[in-house]
Amino acid sequence: MDTKYIYLFSEGNGNMRELLGGKGANLAEMTGLGMPVPQGFTITTEACTRYYEDGETIAPEIEADIFAYLRKMEDICGKKFGDTANPLLVSVRSGARASMPGMMDTILNLGLNDSVAEAMAKLTGNPRFVYDAYRRFIQMFSDVVMELPKKDFEDMIDQIKASKGVKFDKDLDTDDLKKLVVMFKDYYKSKMGEDFPADPNVQLIEAVKAVFRSWNNERAIYYRRMNDIPSSWGTAVNVQSMVFGNMGDDSGTGVAFTRDPSTGEKKLYGEFLMNAQGEDVVAGVRTPQTIDQLAEVMPEVYSQFVDIANRLENHYRDMQDMEFTIEKGKLYMLQTRNGKRTAQAALRIAVQLFDEGMLTKEEALMKIEPKQLDTLLHPNFDDAALKAATAVATGLAASPGAACGAVYFTAADAAAAAANGPVLLVRTLTSPEDIEGMNLAEGILTATGGMTSHAAVVARGMGTCCVSGCGDLVIYEAEKYCTIAGNVVKEGEFVSIDGSTGKVYIGKIPTVDATVSGDFSKIMEWADEIRTLNIRTNADTPADAAQAVAFGAEGIGLTRTEHMFFDADRIPAVREMIISRTTEQRKSALAKLQPMQRGDFEGIFKAMEGRPVTIRLLDPPLHEFLPTADEDIAALADEMGVTFDQLKETVASLHETNPMMGHRGCRLPVTYPEIAEMQATAIIEAAINVKRETGLEIVPEIMIPLTCEVKELAFVKKIVVETADAIIAASDVKVDYLVGTMIEIPRAALTADEIAKEAQFFSFGTNDLTQMTFGFSRDDAGKFLPSYYERNIFEKDPFASVDQSGVGKLVDMASKLGRTTRPDIKLGVCGEHGGDPASIEFFHKVGLNYVSCSPFRVPIARLAAAQAAINNK
Amino acid sequence: MDTKYIYLFSEGNGNMRELLGGKGANLAEMTGLGMPVPQGFTITTEACTRYYEDGETIAPEIEADIFAYLRKMEDICGKKFGDTANPLLVSVRSGARASMPGMMDTILNLGLNDSVAEAMAKLTGNPRFVYDAYRRFIQMFSDVVMELPKKDFEDMIDQIKASKGVKFDKDLDTDDLKKLVVMFKDYYKSKMGEDFPADPNVQLIEAVKAVFRSWNNERAIYYRRMNDIPSSWGTAVNVQSMVFGNMGDDSGTGVAFTRDPSTGEKKLYGEFLMNAQGEDVVAGVRTPQTIDQLAEVMPEVYSQFVDIANRLENHYRDMQDMEFTIEKGKLYMLQTRNGKRTAQAALRIAVQLFDEGMLTKEEALMKIEPKQLDTLLHPNFDDAALKAATAVATGLAASPGAACGAVYFTAADAAAAAANGPVLLVRTLTSPEDIEGMNLAEGILTATGGMTSHAAVVARGMGTCCVSGCGDLVIYEAEKYCTIAGNVVKEGEFVSIDGSTGKVYIGKIPTVDATVSGDFSKIMEWADEIRTLNIRTNADTPADAAQAVAFGAEGIGLTRTEHMFFDADRIPAVREMIISRTTEQRKSALAKLQPMQRGDFEGIFKAMEGRPVTIRLLDPPLHEFLPTADEDIAALADEMGVTFDQLKETVASLHETNPMMGHRGCRLPVTYPEIAEMQATAIIEAAINVKRETGLEIVPEIMIPLTCEVKELAFVKKIVVETADAIIAASDVKVDYLVGTMIEIPRAALTADEIAKEAQFFSFGTNDLTQMTFGFSRDDAGKFLPSYYERNIFEKDPFASVDQSGVGKLVDMASKLGRTTRPDIKLGVCGEHGGDPASIEFFHKVGLNYVSCSPFRVPIARLAAAQAAINNK
Repeated sequence: MDTKYIYLFSEGNGNMRELLGGKGANLAEMTGLGMPVPQGFTITTEACTRYYEDGETIAPEIEADIFAYLRKMEDICGKKFGDTANPLLVSVRSGARASMPGMMDTILNLGLNDSVAEAMAKLTGNPRFVYDAYRRFIQMFSDVVMELPKKDFEDMIDQIKASKGVKFDKDLDTDDLKKLVVMFKDYYKSKMGEDFPADPNVQLIEAVKAVFRSWNNERAIYYRRMNDIPSSWGTAVNVQSMVFGNMGDDSGTGVAFTRDPSTGEKKLYGEFLMNAQGEDVVAGVRTPQTIDQLAEVMPEVYSQFVDIANRLENHYRDMQDMEFTIEKGKLYMLQTRNGKRTAQAALRIAVQLFDEGMLTKEEALMKIEPKQLDTLLHPNFDDAALKAATAVATGLAASPGAACGAVYFTAADAAAAAANGPVLLVRTLTSPEDIEGMNLAEGILTATGGMTSHAAVVARGMGTCCVSGCGDLVIYEAEKYCTIAGNVVKEGEFVSIDGSTGKVYIGKIPTVDATVSGDFSKIMEWADEIRTLNIRTNADTPADAAQAVAFGAEGIGLTRTEHMFFDADRIPAVREMIISRTTEQRKSALAKLQPMQRGDFEGIFKAMEGRPVTIRLLDPPLHEFLPTADEDIAALADEMGVTFDQLKETVASLHETNPMMGHRGCRLPVTYPEIAEMQATAIIEAAINVKRETGLEIVPEIMIPLTCEVKELAFVKKIVVETADAIIAASDVKVDYLVGTMIEIPRAALTADEIAKEAQFFSFGTNDLTQMTFGFSRDDAGKFLPSYYERNIFEKDPFASVDQSGVGKLVDMASKLGRTTRPDIKLGVCGEHGGDPASIEFFHKVGLNYVSCSPFRVPIARLAAAQAAINNK
Repeated sequence: MDTKYIYLFSEGNGNMRELLGGKGANLAEMTGLGMPVPQGFTITTEACTRYYEDGETIAPEIEADIFAYLRKMEDICGKKFGDTANPLLVSVRSGARASMPGMMDTILNLGLNDSVAEAMAKLTGNPRFVYDAYRRFIQMFSDVVMELPKKDFEDMIDQIKASKGVKFDKDLDTDDLKKLVVMFKDYYKSKMGEDFPADPNVQLIEAVKAVFRSWNNERAIYYRRMNDIPSSWGTAVNVQSMVFGNMGDDSGTGVAFTRDPSTGEKKLYGEFLMNAQGEDVVAGVRTPQTIDQLAEVMPEVYSQFVDIANRLENHYRDMQDMEFTIEKGKLYMLQTRNGKRTAQAALRIAVQLFDEGMLTKEEALMKIEPKQLDTLLHPNFDDAALKAATAVATGLAASPGAACGAVYFTAADAAAAAANGPVLLVRTLTSPEDIEGMNLAEGILTATGGMTSHAAVVARGMGTCCVSGCGDLVIYEAEKYCTIAGNVVKEGEFVSIDGSTGKVYIGKIPTVDATVSGDFSKIMEWADEIRTLNIRTNADTPADAAQAVAFGAEGIGLTRTEHMFFDADRIPAVREMIISRTTEQRKSALAKLQPMQRGDFEGIFKAMEGRPVTIRLLDPPLHEFLPTADEDIAALADEMGVTFDQLKETVASLHETNPMMGHRGCRLPVTYPEIAEMQATAIIEAAINVKRETGLEIVPEIMIPLTCEVKELAFVKKIVVETADAIIAASDVKVDYLVGTMIEIPRAALTADEIAKEAQFFSFGTNDLTQMTFGFSRDDAGKFLPSYYERNIFEKDPFASVDQSGVGKLVDMASKLGRTTRPDIKLGVCGEHGGDPASIEFFHKVGLNYVSCSPFRVPIARLAAAQAAINNK
């Protein structure tokens, strides 16, 4: 049978997301539910894939199908495309499986040309509306399909307004708009070398192609990468009969949520504008009315809408985000989808839906995007500091949380500066082009736009704090400054914003840590009931350890001992060790470090109250502890009582061509066993001391990094075991301990059956394992990876989400090999992937015992582990 | 049953090498053949392993066994250990499975103490002999077992000689020797804090332990690594009844080969010394007589020896290397083994043994160590230059070949200098401590020592050119110069030596390439009949390609295009490409390179005469083509017409933290597709031109380096294919081509099933694959690998011989995965491992189609591939 590339809305249903995209499937579902949906058809995602396979062309049979379905649509709507008697106008919209709001292209009012416009003007008796629609269509088509610069069209509008001496678009009359249509078409011809296409069929096919193409525009690629959406999915295209919210005062358009997307409160929440098109609401140009005001403006329509909203929420068993249009008093549903929401709202809605009996615990847990919890875990403003601070302005509380950063006025500047510290993106309004800068900013502040403006919607999705529609903000982008209620703030100066109150402060306001309570703690409780994966944390200090325990960490998966070496009171001894020329000198320097390290470990053991603690022996290459600039070397040489030349020589001798693959990890104690001796001594003595003091059973897990060969591990393990056993034998307090290794080198994974003969546990160091499996250094890959994303070679950052087919294969292989040798071997992950939900699901499937992540990621990991368990039941 | 740790010579046989070591097994075999062997027993290699497992102690039951076997030995010999009536003296010698001459320890005359010496003096009527043996024993025991400095003992001998006013050891009389015994024992007590052990049982156990320990001395570890001998094998210990070659003029000792080990000529070849111990011959202190002179000195013994030699060669079906002692007119065989030989001799002997019907072709091929062929492939002196040169001295032609290098007078100095250019090690005589310097030197020149001196034996084994016993050479080691026939040569000055003639020249003599003919070409012919693996070569120039074809290469496995970029006439265009700021600039620079690259490829295609040629696209990071020092940058900026700052910025922007894992390989054309376009154009145009000119079918294999992901390969392949197909379509000459990839990143191996969808061939780049699989950079590993060898963590250099359990596992996995997707995929190796015999055997087993190695390794690879086929039939 031939592939069916096109479905009428009446042929599809809500389960066909993969084929019809989210928008198309939901339009079909609403059609099936008998709701008022402007009819049309969906061109499938498979047609998009085919378009790319065919070298970015639409195959003749698909083109023929499109026109066949257009005919069916004409029959359903009782209008004809390009007809002057009863013309059909259509919208052409993208719609991927996963919602990608604003990322791809839309063209409205398609089907207009001079004769259709003239006929419609007569038919509607509203020529101004028709010519406004016509000029908008030419503008949109030129921009989206032909990529002519938007600004040139706006300039022409400004020109006409100036010549008439008026300020707003609404002040232009039909003749002005007709003039604009002529100007636009002339401009189009001058740029494109051919007439603007008058044939609606040509318009349609070009628009479909443009939507297919937009699947691979830069911001769509970036969004997909950020949201783990494969490029192979493609987008569907929805061709839908146009309805008009701008046909007069009995027309309007709006968007609404069945619950408050900021707080989760159960009440209809949204905005509308009368006599406007949908784009006017989303773009945030005019400030709209709230949805409950519709009850006054059009009570019947309002009550119909409330009814539909309730039915949709019950039907989808989730909070809905709906778009509607009222054309001459008649309500049309243009879209429904599960609504994006803040983390706080997501938790509240999930708990409510469970309480309302609409969802099981498992289903409720699946409603929450784990990454989103991040928002709730970031610090809020310190209460006292906040009381002392005075807000200079207030905008809309568009996305909750607090943010403080240096201000930048373009997305590009913000993105560039983000590497050097926290930044705040400050814009009049944001547009999809700004996506990268928005993602990298701590917070977003805009001068215009409502709660559903681009900035607000995107910020909530990202979990980034946002204040929108701040009327007291004026931005001088070219001059690189802004005024906030008259106060001048230059690029790079600090501003603080509160996305939960909408308040804006000049200067820095200190922040405090987040806590887990209420709905959050209930969701965490449910997650803990269901998950099988343990969640540990990476923590190098007692404070981090305590924070992680507060967030639910069940142990430490990674304590990096080298961070302790950088403290001002220690680095002299560390350097003394490094420049030692004999084992004796080295031992004497290490002896100074030992009591300090013991103290570190005592603090951590106490903070963890008997939970397991994995401590990694010194890992980085020694040159990291020495300066490289001549003046610093000279200063240090003085301080250490050696000559400049001696120290310079040591620094030079430690230089490495590829330090990532150099003298580090367990290669250090292979050369200098006394380093491992000192560290093992500090760990075991600390365990004994804390056990003696607290009575808690302390079982340190001593981890040897960078193993590539079992004999290497055996050598270092022997040092550790001999040291530890001697201390334990001589002590009145007996402690137990484990010795294991990082699996972070491909060879360790490949020979894990051998390695497991010596290792009592494996901890996968997926950061280094990713570097070595891919053969690129994280430090350098930034220079060439952009080309890889651009060309769709990589779809996501392999350092953010574990590469399952390469790195994951090694993890899986090593787990199986390890268990063959030692069935009870403990397996965990301590790379950054330990806090990434997609990676966590993978590690669950591989059968690891735990993942370890930064303290702030622990709740995310708890939820992700529960979802993994549910998904893989 | 209890493990049997000890065997009498009469209990073993020649097949028990693994248990008894080579020496022990052959002593047992000779005993079985009824030959005159001083009897004794062998402590097995398993006892050695057990010694290390037990923390370097001899288990009580093994110690008990040793004494039980000593009793049996006493019964067989009719003498008693430590007895004054009829004392038994023994030697204690190491003996591993594989011959490791001089690497481990030996103690002779064990069983002597004051009373035994006194008794023996009476029994033999030769007190001088007895006390000479006694003082030698104390000396050797102190050195070998207790590690007291040899030199101190020699100083005491010198002291006595000085006090008596004599020059030679032989001038010392019995009283002098008795005095020495007392001095030695006093010295021992002063150093060790206890008396020299008088108890022969203590002497024996300590000596056995010392031999076990010597398995892990530094030079043994180095030798094993060089010769692929696993440390797990351990050494056996042979305890053998002493016989004395120094009991007077009817006694003597010697070594002999059944054929000439230099040339392979079929005649008894060797040396002996009358009234001497074995160590005197090997150490090269006195210059011995040739073996045929024994016919005159002791005709009966000679004829008995000739008979035994013939029987042994026929029995072992190989050339034998024998040690014998004549004690008071009676011949004893102390050892026989397959003799080490020069490559030339190895070839000749193999062909002869086949011709004599003693061996099949396969057996004959197995007699030759492939690595040894290297000697024959190195250049010899240019004939004309040699005629013009005048030898200043002549020594013994100890190991053939020609060498020219800067002279160094200690092994350590030579080893250090070898990194900077060819060196010649010049010594009075060499000893086992010199092993590393000997290995790194181009040639070895000694002042004393015969054809079987340490220097000569070791040099032949290594295939290193050696002239020994050059009487006109005097070395002033401390002053760092020597005189050769009166000419002063300082450290670092050049000397040339001819190991085939024994001639020594001052200065440099140019060399010429080796050719393959005679026995060599016959062996190669046999190898080609038997091997299934194809042998290709790595060649970047027509000259290299032609050389490789002369050596039997069947194609090119790797042409590195970047080497061509460094030529003086090209580097400006390369640099212009790198500093380009636009694609157009880059294309214009590449356009200059293209005709030159085409010319390169035309030359190579012609030289290969239609054999397959694999060309790798540009691989190294671009910064390698730019200078880094400020003054060089300034000069280049001038030359290129850019400012210093601009160029400096480009250099800085190309700097990478870990360049090995940076922007290189196929990552370059992903960023700059025009580079691959230019190279594909040059390759295809060259193929067309050469096909047009010669009529040969040229099928270039275009190789994309550093792939880690199939989509990356697909992207670059598309550029290559589109470029190539367009050129071919436009040409009147049609050529075919393949596109494949290097597998040199772990992820490529792990996802080889995917990669094979795009790649028509795989070439394993085992150099980079080794770096990334082990996680260490070759450039940096030199700093820490010595610790790894020292601690027996690594036994061989994974860059020299492929790591089968890690890297090899990836090669095997990738081969299987690749063939699953594409059953006819061509698989090869182009790393340095392609010329290593052990690696070649592994690649044969994995089922690769070919290995590719440097031209000079091609014959080695041909033989190794044949041996692999024989071993795995």
